[in-house]
Amino acid sequence: MKPFLSEQFLLQTETARVLYHDFAASMPIIDYHNHLPPAEIAQDRRFENMTQLWLHGDHYKWRAMRANGIEEQFITGDADDETKFVKWAETVPYTMRNPLYHWTHMELRNPFGITELLNGDTARTIYQECNRQLQDTYSTRALLKHYKVETLCTTDDPCDSLEHHLAIAREPFGVQVLPAFRPDKALAIEDVHAFNQYMDRLGEVTGKEINNYSSLLEALKDRHDFFHEAGCRVSDHGLDTFYSTEYTDEEILLIFLKVREGKAASPEEVAKFKSALLYFLAVMDYEKDWVQQFHVGALRNTNSRLLAKLGADAGVDSIDDLVHARPMMRFFDRLDKEEKLTRTIVYNLNPADNEIFATMMGNYQDSSIPGKMQFGSGWWYLDQKDGMEKQMNALSNLGLLSRFVGMLTDSRSFVSFPRHDYFRRILCNLIGRDVENGELPNDIPWLGQMVQNICYHNAKTYFSFLS
Amino acid sequence: MKPFLSEQFLLQTETARVLYHDFAASMPIIDYHNHLPPAEIAQDRRFENMTQLWLHGDHYKWRAMRANGIEEQFITGDADDETKFVKWAETVPYTMRNPLYHWTHMELRNPFGITELLNGDTARTIYQECNRQLQDTYSTRALLKHYKVETLCTTDDPCDSLEHHLAIAREPFGVQVLPAFRPDKALAIEDVHAFNQYMDRLGEVTGKEINNYSSLLEALKDRHDFFHEAGCRVSDHGLDTFYSTEYTDEEILLIFLKVREGKAASPEEVAKFKSALLYFLAVMDYEKDWVQQFHVGALRNTNSRLLAKLGADAGVDSIDDLVHARPMMRFFDRLDKEEKLTRTIVYNLNPADNEIFATMMGNYQDSSIPGKMQFGSGWWYLDQKDGMEKQMNALSNLGLLSRFVGMLTDSRSFVSFPRHDYFRRILCNLIGRDVENGELPNDIPWLGQMVQNICYHNAKTYFSFLS
Amino acid sequence: MKPFLSEQFLLQTETARVLYHDFAASMPIIDYHNHLPPAEIAQDRRFENMTQLWLHGDHYKWRAMRANGIEEQFITGDADDETKFVKWAETVPYTMRNPLYHWTHMELRNPFGITELLNGDTARTIYQECNRQLQDTYSTRALLKHYKVETLCTTDDPCDSLEHHLAIAREPFGVQVLPAFRPDKALAIEDVHAFNQYMDRLGEVTGKEINNYSSLLEALKDRHDFFHEAGCRVSDHGLDTFYSTEYTDEEILLIFLKVREGKAASPEEVAKFKSALLYFLAVMDYEKDWVQQFHVGALRNTNSRLLAKLGADAGVDSIDDLVHARPMMRFFDRLDKEEKLTRTIVYNLNPADNEIFATMMGNYQDSSIPGKMQFGSGWWYLDQKDGMEKQMNALSNLGLLSRFVGMLTDSRSFVSFPRHDYFRRILCNLIGRDVENGELPNDIPWLGQMVQNICYHNAKTYFSFLS
Repeated sequence: MKPFLSEQFLLQTETARVLYHDFAASMPIIDYHNHLPPAEIAQDRRFENMTQLWLHGDHYKWRAMRANGIEEQFITGDADDETKFVKWAETVPYTMRNPLYHWTHMELRNPFGITELLNGDTARTIYQECNRQLQDTYSTRALLKHYKVETLCTTDDPCDSLEHHLAIAREPFGVQVLPAFRPDKALAIEDVHAFNQYMDRLGEVTGKEINNYSSLLEALKDRHDFFHEAGCRVSDHGLDTFYSTEYTDEEILLIFLKVREGKAASPEEVAKFKSALLYFLAVMDYEKDWVQQFHVGALRNTNSRLLAKLGADAGVDSIDDLVHARPMMRFFDRLDKEEKLTRTIVYNLNPADNEIFATMMGNYQDSSIPGKMQFGSGWWYLDQKDGMEKQMNALSNLGLLSRFVGMLTDSRSFVSFPRHDYFRRILCNLIGRDVENGELPNDIPWLGQMVQNICYHNAKTYFSFLS
Repeated sequence: MKPFLSEQFLLQTETARVLYHDFAASMPIIDYHNHLPPAEIAQDRRFENMTQLWLHGDHYKWRAMRANGIEEQFITGDADDETKFVKWAETVPYTMRNPLYHWTHMELRNPFGITELLNGDTARTIYQECNRQLQDTYSTRALLKHYKVETLCTTDDPCDSLEHHLAIAREPFGVQVLPAFRPDKALAIEDVHAFNQYMDRLGEVTGKEINNYSSLLEALKDRHDFFHEAGCRVSDHGLDTFYSTEYTDEEILLIFLKVREGKAASPEEVAKFKSALLYFLAVMDYEKDWVQQFHVGALRNTNSRLLAKLGADAGVDSIDDLVHARPMMRFFDRLDKEEKLTRTIVYNLNPADNEIFATMMGNYQDSSIPGKMQFGSGWWYLDQKDGMEKQMNALSNLGLLSRFVGMLTDSRSFVSFPRHDYFRRILCNLIGRDVENGELPNDIPWLGQMVQNICYHNAKTYFSFLS
Repeated sequence: MKPFLSEQFLLQTETARVLYHDFAASMPIIDYHNHLPPAEIAQDRRFENMTQLWLHGDHYKWRAMRANGIEEQFITGDADDETKFVKWAETVPYTMRNPLYHWTHMELRNPFGITELLNGDTARTIYQECNRQLQDTYSTRALLKHYKVETLCTTDDPCDSLEHHLAIAREPFGVQVLPAFRPDKALAIEDVHAFNQYMDRLGEVTGKEINNYSSLLEALKDRHDFFHEAGCRVSDHGLDTFYSTEYTDEEILLIFLKVREGKAASPEEVAKFKSALLYFLAVMDYEKDWVQQFHVGALRNTNSRLLAKLGADAGVDSIDDLVHARPMMRFFDRLDKEEKLTRTIVYNLNPADNEIFATMMGNYQDSSIPGKMQFGSGWWYLDQKDGMEKQMNALSNLGLLSRFVGMLTDSRSFVSFPRHDYFRRILCNLIGRDVENGELPNDIPWLGQMVQNICYHNAKTYFSFLS
């Protein structure tokens, strides 16, 4: 019987324990994709309380509370912060076997040093102790340093001024905070009104009216350049699937004009437009030697009632079941054929598709760098033990685990970095189990190096962040 | 080396054994969905022999016998009952690793107390001993009481008179036997002839001619009311996928008239009709505070030869691969937006889709009751150890296992109740393993309560059966 | 801690070890589907070196080397053989957890007796030792005999002269080497140019001009007869999915003429043509009592650049995500209804579809032979421990593992036969674990027989090879 969440958490063999403690644990963190608000780093925000830190933006917890029958008032509504925390605390014991149960207690232990279990009885004491430490010690920057974050990449709209990134860069504090270029809104031509608003805004930001497709491309290029100067070396896309329909330039010009005149594009036109623009963006990434990332397979905003009330990211998103293999093939094949395919990470949300993604990445590897095409770590709903194991097993069986760039938090929270620890333990456990079963040689120096590569060095080499 | 099928069957840790024996084992059974024939309960049928009990309706066994090369004569044909039993017994050793192997021996042990393994050599002795007990002791009612069934829900056509349910209710015997409303035939407009026959029959039963769509709705409402009065609190649907196409009332009226005139509806018209009627049925369930169930993803009657010979449920059904995410989203979102979404259980037949279903359910949870939207237990082909574990792991990772309403047999057989025992052992084993691995706290009182909730109390609370 | 790749490799329980060593290990090999070149058997080729044996045709290794950042020159290019071997050796440690790591070291041990691990340091010594043995001892025929291959089936185009098979048959050497009929090119009507070239060639081979559909059928029948006389008893198809669209004979005649005139068939016409011809081929297999095989679900040649440079089988193929259930149902149902369905093995490349395939096979079993319809062993990307376990677990849960015809290499290499050993260990391990967990009875004689059946006897009975 192993105690809950001990030093040996998730490490079921002696070899796993050696790999974790002697090799993985000390590695710094490169969190190359997350949703942290740069303003809160620039301002070195101090959270008033745990509800602000834990509950104001965490739709994972919102979902769990709704599934537990908690009223919306106590989740996203106007209840006071302490009451909300108590409601969450009361829900926690009901989340056993959900990753939230582990995350919650890992985050209480690190940074807060609290080993008590959270529930309705312990809620208020824990709330006060955490609040005290948040006020006294753990500002956003203190948290990043506490977790040994070396570099992190936020997720930013091309229209963003990057003022906070620039401010941080002017007065470095020991953690590299970089932007990432996420042009989802420029692709979202299916929503005529929002798209046109966005085009207007992009025009304002770049000082050029966006009245035809080539002015859109120019404006995006301007912003891409600007991001590059600000140290950005990575883009990101949230896609339902890849777009690689055939199109002519003439068609794209006309589709763009049509939508700019307020008319809706047909589904076929939407697909053509996205195919053209995604290709253009991929080529820009190639030209600047960035890494491009694709998060594929979410079905978002499935609950109109909560979308209307709370906006996007309300905790009502799902795993989708579109087909991906052939559009993904056409997308990458075109870039590869034209020698414009940059280093690429694809994250997949439906675990049933893991093997499709893992094999597809293998089709476009080349000698520019080991592991050029990456099947990314378990994402969102798959960012848990089963999900990570499935991703790493698929990658191992169908590619090279040794060349994997590893974990990222993808989180909105400053205390999600223990997920790197979670990942590292799971990785070491998989390898340790194989060694003790006689399925891998007991070559600790090599395996230790492999673990350190996956935890840190592979990402360090893969991304071209200036240091 | 653990002995086969011992008291500790499937319980691999001490914690699992404690959870099972001290908490799970003694819980009564609420079997909220099965296909037991109410007439046989009303009449307290005594089976003449094991073939009648085990083989006359069990298409799982038929499939195994066919895969074992047994001639159809000995499966569904005119061979005598004892010969059929022997043929099945000879097949049993070939079913090792199939759930039939476990089920068969669990059912021989409980209720018959037979621990010998079934095979060609033991067939006749076991046959005679079981037959003797069936004649002497185990009538249908005796079996239900033996297994501690508290409540069970059969599956009934809206046209059913419910005479047997009413008869049972008039003279209670200690087990609550309730109907469930399964209007599949009212939705099956794609088969013009059968649909019109069914409409005629529904007209006869309700005393109102079904000559337009609104009279169909009225008739279904009549029967829904009638079922409600008979204690029914749950509906069920067998769907290939969800239907939520847009339609106008006018369109539905015309489609209905067209088919009533003997003309085939187009695939698009079929989809619109199903969308309209499914919505209507869901609203009725909401208005009466019923639970609605959806069994999704079977591809039925794939073998025309056996369909023609034996009719439906001949053991020639498959797992389908339609897409579900978006139609399911539209279906539930409309009901949720209109505040007409009742408590819902969705069962999925393709395990590759587990994560889609588990996340979709989470999008429509609300404070009306914890676990309002349920991702149902492993169904049909997935009603086995791997399938149950996958369902519970998906639910755990993507929702709240603690709020799960648990197991149901879905069976046509009066001796399938050991499947609840099977489920409970698997559940306790999953939790016990997590505890001993240090992945859950060793809090036996809480975990024991959680286990009892999943085995019994959650269902008790979830369903509004009168008691 | 178990040593790497010991005698007890993959055998985690004592029961597994007994089943493997006392029952499985000594069974001869029936390798009923592979891609070995018959010419090299006829000529009893002696490989000059390990690069020729291991690297010249192995696109699994090519993929791993590309993922490891090796330049194409050292993979498929003009580097010398020893350098290529060293580059591969340097990649090997990076393949840990990929099946290549196991295969590589299993093949070094058997036949070469080399237990050292392959890497950059050991590369040259191992290269020389293997080369010596290849020259001195292990010609192709010696390898086949060393591995106790009793029968093997290659994969041959209908136009093939089978000269090498005939030559081998004239002077038997103790291993039965049979052809298999793989008419993929006759189905590939979507590529007008290649199809017409192939029709011309088929016309030359049969001495009859192929100028209409019925002459195509006659020519294929001729070749089918010829293959039958040469001992062929098995066909094979590589399909993206099954084709079972409705068509009329008139339509097929016209589609064929259109393409023969150099015009492209529409996608619908392609589907009709393939439906008609696949049916015809299946009926021929039935009439001659052959086994038909279908390899379903690959997305091939996804990388135009490497396809242009290296041709097909360049290591740039993927797992596809087409839907299969309904087309597969229609295909088999038609044959079954007409009583023209021969013994059939279906291999599936997307593990997410395992349960669909496993249940579909169960729908068409009959009493002609136990296990008539086979869900085939883990194929290509799934030919590894996880993939094999998933396939065997799906088959166990949804069918009869006991009637499984077991393993085949599907390989182009004369040293891939240790994969049978790999499979046997995994099989024994699954069963042994179940026994020791109390999930199967500890009936070693029965289980040993079952293991031997799966490893050898089932295939021996299933295929109607003359002996």
